[in-house]
Amino acid sequence: MNKNYDNQQKIVSAVKIIPLGGLEQIGMNITAFAYDDTIIVVDCGLAFPDDDMLGIDLVIPDIAFLEENREKVKAFVITHGHEDHIGALPYILKKLNIPVYATRLTMGIIENKLKEHDLLDITERHVVSFGDSITLGDFGVEFIRTNHSIVDAASLAIYSPAGIIVHTGDFKVDYTPVFGDAIDLPRFAELGKKGVLAMLCDSTNAESHGFTPSEKTVGEAFDQLFQKHKDTRIIIATFASNVDRVQQIINSAYKFGRKVVVEGRSMVNIIDTAQNLGCLKIPENTLIETDLLRDYPDDRTVIITTGSQGESMAALSRMASGQHRKISIGPKDTIIFSSHPIPGNEKAVTNVINELLRKGADVIFQDVHVSGHARQEEIKLIYSLTKPKYVVPVHGEYKHLKAHAELAQGLGYDKEDIFVLTSGDVLSISEDHAEVTGKVHAGALYVDGLGIGDVGNAVLRDRQHLGESGVFIVSAAIDPENGYVVTGPAIVTRGFVYVKESDELIDEARELVQLAIESCIEKGITEISRFRNTIRDELSEFIWRRTKRSPMIIPIIMDAS
Amino acid sequence: MNKNYDNQQKIVSAVKIIPLGGLEQIGMNITAFAYDDTIIVVDCGLAFPDDDMLGIDLVIPDIAFLEENREKVKAFVITHGHEDHIGALPYILKKLNIPVYATRLTMGIIENKLKEHDLLDITERHVVSFGDSITLGDFGVEFIRTNHSIVDAASLAIYSPAGIIVHTGDFKVDYTPVFGDAIDLPRFAELGKKGVLAMLCDSTNAESHGFTPSEKTVGEAFDQLFQKHKDTRIIIATFASNVDRVQQIINSAYKFGRKVVVEGRSMVNIIDTAQNLGCLKIPENTLIETDLLRDYPDDRTVIITTGSQGESMAALSRMASGQHRKISIGPKDTIIFSSHPIPGNEKAVTNVINELLRKGADVIFQDVHVSGHARQEEIKLIYSLTKPKYVVPVHGEYKHLKAHAELAQGLGYDKEDIFVLTSGDVLSISEDHAEVTGKVHAGALYVDGLGIGDVGNAVLRDRQHLGESGVFIVSAAIDPENGYVVTGPAIVTRGFVYVKESDELIDEARELVQLAIESCIEKGITEISRFRNTIRDELSEFIWRRTKRSPMIIPIIMDAS
Repeated sequence: MNKNYDNQQKIVSAVKIIPLGGLEQIGMNITAFAYDDTIIVVDCGLAFPDDDMLGIDLVIPDIAFLEENREKVKAFVITHGHEDHIGALPYILKKLNIPVYATRLTMGIIENKLKEHDLLDITERHVVSFGDSITLGDFGVEFIRTNHSIVDAASLAIYSPAGIIVHTGDFKVDYTPVFGDAIDLPRFAELGKKGVLAMLCDSTNAESHGFTPSEKTVGEAFDQLFQKHKDTRIIIATFASNVDRVQQIINSAYKFGRKVVVEGRSMVNIIDTAQNLGCLKIPENTLIETDLLRDYPDDRTVIITTGSQGESMAALSRMASGQHRKISIGPKDTIIFSSHPIPGNEKAVTNVINELLRKGADVIFQDVHVSGHARQEEIKLIYSLTKPKYVVPVHGEYKHLKAHAELAQGLGYDKEDIFVLTSGDVLSISEDHAEVTGKVHAGALYVDGLGIGDVGNAVLRDRQHLGESGVFIVSAAIDPENGYVVTGPAIVTRGFVYVKESDELIDEARELVQLAIESCIEKGITEISRFRNTIRDELSEFIWRRTKRSPMIIPIIMDAS
Repeated sequence: MNKNYDNQQKIVSAVKIIPLGGLEQIGMNITAFAYDDTIIVVDCGLAFPDDDMLGIDLVIPDIAFLEENREKVKAFVITHGHEDHIGALPYILKKLNIPVYATRLTMGIIENKLKEHDLLDITERHVVSFGDSITLGDFGVEFIRTNHSIVDAASLAIYSPAGIIVHTGDFKVDYTPVFGDAIDLPRFAELGKKGVLAMLCDSTNAESHGFTPSEKTVGEAFDQLFQKHKDTRIIIATFASNVDRVQQIINSAYKFGRKVVVEGRSMVNIIDTAQNLGCLKIPENTLIETDLLRDYPDDRTVIITTGSQGESMAALSRMASGQHRKISIGPKDTIIFSSHPIPGNEKAVTNVINELLRKGADVIFQDVHVSGHARQEEIKLIYSLTKPKYVVPVHGEYKHLKAHAELAQGLGYDKEDIFVLTSGDVLSISEDHAEVTGKVHAGALYVDGLGIGDVGNAVLRDRQHLGESGVFIVSAAIDPENGYVVTGPAIVTRGFVYVKESDELIDEARELVQLAIESCIEKGITEISRFRNTIRDELSEFIWRRTKRSPMIIPIIMDAS
């Protein structure tokens, strides 16, 4: 594996860009930059499992490549504090404990995670300010202020011996951000003047025309909604990590004289961290505990809550289904979804909306959200400032990367200078040449409970089969040498059919197994595995014929001779 | 159950409207209309299973109420040939074989289904023309021409002794339909003049402003796309049942001199039926077999295919994943999605798009579709023509019904005259009064293979558990009376963990079971159930502690004494 990566004698001065995730899906962003004996890694995100990954909690990148080169890997450099950029850190740091560099709030959120995993004391951490540069082996890395749906997001200028590589991270251009300054466009321009070799740029909204509106426009929408719904309680669901959104809700609440309650563990955690770091300004006596809601009339309170994606265990879903211990929904509630459903979550969100409406609440779910990612005009702006020689669209599904590539062609780039990569590709770039020169191992590991990587595709296929059709177990102890059944066959089914109403079917199956065993004995068969196979074959044919179903058939035939 | 429904002495002249499905979800539309000794049933649809209904093929309405009143039930009256209005018919007719009334194409599609289920010969069928009325006991039913995304869709005027009830069915107002005439607005106006007691009206697009564009606009879009993509093969995915859409694709193909191939069994069936009934006009020598594709250059062919919803087994998905035996996708293909993803299918559709793009194809998925359902201005139009006294929003999730109710209030209706029902409600309407007077049993039955209703929530919960965490089976034969283990314990797991890499865990579990059995024997326990419970409890605690997982634990302890 390693060979491909090292065996590039002819391009000695090339810097290598090796995405290890994030190009096949939304999530799991992690990219290695390598030059001689230095490797640095930008971001270390997780992905949430697809619907067919039954029982999987999280998906993290397989970092076999980094482990094989562990003496070269200098650090993780993190762009911002979202799960798809930091979520795998605690799992990966256990295997590869290297220093972590990030801006203030990003580090605050990372530290929360490290605490949970007992990693805080053993992990070297460096908080970096915008404009600062750090040196990591052959690389220098400068953090550049950008805008995104979380405070303290950074783009990176990576100085390599082969030239400057810009990694935008997740970004948008917000001239009127809620917190801090606008994206440091002048710095992008300066880098452009110096000469940028390559740019890895956010593709999330590359299919969307125009310019993503400022986060501030959502604040104006809140003010209007607070004005309009003066007589009801207001409940607002948004992402826990969108600190600016939370700030604007608090601003509106304060302006309209309402107390604020925060619901949902992740929301409470991030608000705490952001407030401690000065990234969130909450006027005194504004936040109250949930228990104190009863001391205020409905029209004097606002609840900020998790669950904007319809997550079944989140606070809003529990309110909607009447399972929240402290908050019940009724006609005196106005519920605002300050979010868009992430693809795949549409139905879950709709189900929550229907439940809320049924309880008589007013539900508002349009035009109270803006994206944190650049649309086409912003992407073009960054290109026209940075003027990279080579183009590497990142952060997106294939359709986003392709739309981004077409956008770059529209800006005059040659197809040959645009690289739509897949995870594991080794893109070697020197001053005047770029090409994919190899492939390293890249993939995903599934986290299920305490296990990492001990559930793979074979286990998932079994789960799918069990989930679709249930299990049909036959157990018997036999003495094949002496030719008799010691005990059984016993039949147990789960997830197959209502057993009580299928007595007859089960009885017939038991008889069939009995006959199969007897016929094996008569034939003088002694290998237990042949008993097992005969039983499985006959049962599956019988069950399919009678029910047109294929439960997983598990014969447990024990040798009691 | 029946009592509520019959025991309405005080309102003897009331007609009863009893929805038996379709109000909690999209799909499974079925509504009973009852007066004295007559019950008629409008539509008999199925629903597709939710993601959490593992292994379920279809969901059909529970018609216990109709079976209890079987001597009164006169007929099924069907509005149009979509699955959510006819799909349950073959299953229901097996339990309640009553006559079916429908328009020409609707009946053609129903007959295809009856053939598959061997019901054609035993089912009384009546094809009704627009403008015709049929008499069914105390009711007269008139079929009114309407527009929808399938030809021959009907609204119904139901004449009852209590007054006229209009059921719009699924409808839109299309002044320039592809086939046949525009919706018979004058007839709605005449009914309005006569006086309409109540209207059940389509709510699908009640949240959308404005007017749904004419189906013809899609034909114009096809012409433009055929003009633009003159040099590639064109593949168009749409709903099999959208005969007008297929007609327009054929029109464009003919105009641009391309041959047409039809892919996907359901598509072939419906096109056959529609063509035989004269609802689809295909110029001679236009349709060709898939095998003949090779005889024509790419730019002379069009493929119409199923799979617009990303269904994994549909023709388009098989092409995208390279598993289609006869059609492979490449850079010489332009693929048009003439559809919108149904909520819940977004991710599957996106996956197919990504796969097609990766193969180099051009994919177009915007602005090549219009809805078949009325938006707000069309709904208002129907109300202003029909002027019903009472309003019953149907066909939609709760949020659609609620938006519809608000629309009606905006038209001046009192809240008291609008009835947002749930399935099973008995809405009794007389000339000057309407109220919900009772509740009958209504629900859903799951179809899984040959079984109907033999998989319910308990079985689904087991499937969910098995799918999430797998199964952990322990089998042993013991002789508790004499105090020893005859054979076992044997341990088998599926969907739990890679077994080879978890030897140690399994060995420890086996030891634990051994000890549990021995300790039961020592205590003089003889009931097999107590052995089972002890093993289950100890194992589940052990496995959770070691893995933070909860596989379904199944101890099969056989008494071999």
